[in-house]
Amino acid sequence: MAGAGANDLKVLGVWTSPFVIRVRIALNMKGLAYEYVEEDLGNKSALLLGSNPVHKSVPVLLHAWRAINESQIILQYIDEVWAGTGPAVLPSDPYERAVARFWAAYIDDKVRSAWLGMLFRCKNEEERAEAVARAGEALDTLEGAFRDCSEGGKKPFFGGDGIGFVDVVLGGYLGWFGAVGKIIGRRLIDPARTPLLAAWEDRFRAADVAKGVVPDDVDKVLAFLQTLLAVSK
Amino acid sequence: MAGAGANDLKVLGVWTSPFVIRVRIALNMKGLAYEYVEEDLGNKSALLLGSNPVHKSVPVLLHAWRAINESQIILQYIDEVWAGTGPAVLPSDPYERAVARFWAAYIDDKVRSAWLGMLFRCKNEEERAEAVARAGEALDTLEGAFRDCSEGGKKPFFGGDGIGFVDVVLGGYLGWFGAVGKIIGRRLIDPARTPLLAAWEDRFRAADVAKGVVPDDVDKVLAFLQTLLAVSK
Repeated sequence: MAGAGANDLKVLGVWTSPFVIRVRIALNMKGLAYEYVEEDLGNKSALLLGSNPVHKSVPVLLHAWRAINESQIILQYIDEVWAGTGPAVLPSDPYERAVARFWAAYIDDKVRSAWLGMLFRCKNEEERAEAVARAGEALDTLEGAFRDCSEGGKKPFFGGDGIGFVDVVLGGYLGWFGAVGKIIGRRLIDPARTPLLAAWEDRFRAADVAKGVVPDDVDKVLAFLQTLLAVSK
Repeated sequence: MAGAGANDLKVLGVWTSPFVIRVRIALNMKGLAYEYVEEDLGNKSALLLGSNPVHKSVPVLLHAWRAINESQIILQYIDEVWAGTGPAVLPSDPYERAVARFWAAYIDDKVRSAWLGMLFRCKNEEERAEAVARAGEALDTLEGAFRDCSEGGKKPFFGGDGIGFVDVVLGGYLGWFGAVGKIIGRRLIDPARTPLLAAWEDRFRAADVAKGVVPDDVDKVLAFLQTLLAVSK
């Protein structure tokens, strides 16, 4: 189908969602203009329900009247459709692509579950401390991964000289990490324990593609999450 | 690195694992010779521990002295490295690739968790029945997905005329499905409830690339899983 608007891009999202944030960062990397539509998770739009009928979740990318679901899949879609536009999200070498996909999957497996434990699934401070400890272990592993990807910290990002797939996937979580940091009274990515990753965080937050997308108002994020938490209990 | 053996392929696996089976099917699709090494999960080899230090799990694909982990990532690696060899695993169109990745992720999310509930995580028959019901719902959704992918059942596979990514991901589970079928006394993919998917199962089992890889000796699979179950309890 061709015609006016065939390449219009629309993102259905929630501003605190790491999964939405990563899609917006990838669109920024490619320099693509898009319409952003904030969803109310308590009252999802007909457009969201219709364009992600299986999971009914954000983000959804609407492109050329078609819906693409699931954030890591959307990132790869953007990279493939706009392969010649802006920097590549995934490396071109198959082995390096496999390594990037491995760490992205690791992050969504370990970091997400630890985060849910830190904020949503902990009944008391002891359980929260346990989830924070698990997150710490996952971040230790990621410190090692970053060391390997960055030639011992010589390169600024997991993607090498520029932001790539793993950076975008992990970077999407930084708003959440800020909120957790406020609760536990220290940075979740601890500069003393994982110095390379802490320096990476500072660089990522300062990157143009992250600005205005990765939330930096910790109190606002926390208030939003606490409302969500109250609703979900 | 080049030289003798640079392209040697080795798979570290366990013969009943859906995740291992799918890697072997993809290698068969590409017509690639490989060495298969059966691992003992109770006594993992140094090669396995060294080549998947994060998860310590099978499958591992060793290629040109490098290890690739995680079955869906391995499938994409094989498809990318041997892009010109044999049929493509993923479609070439970015949207169709996103759809295939979506259903592959859905299968590993829903089918795997239901299966664990059917065999490993059920304390009694009631809990098993609940997991079987959840699997049934996931299979209903997949029946709809197959209808869409196959133009209403006109094409034989999720991949259209030939076996593709979703076929390989789901097809890897058929050995497990057989074992569950023996326990519950009927085919898990119920021909009365999901006829398109049941016909797909028959076609997939009969395909050359699946022969000798998807286990068809139900009693042997069941005995293996029950041993594993006894060890893990």
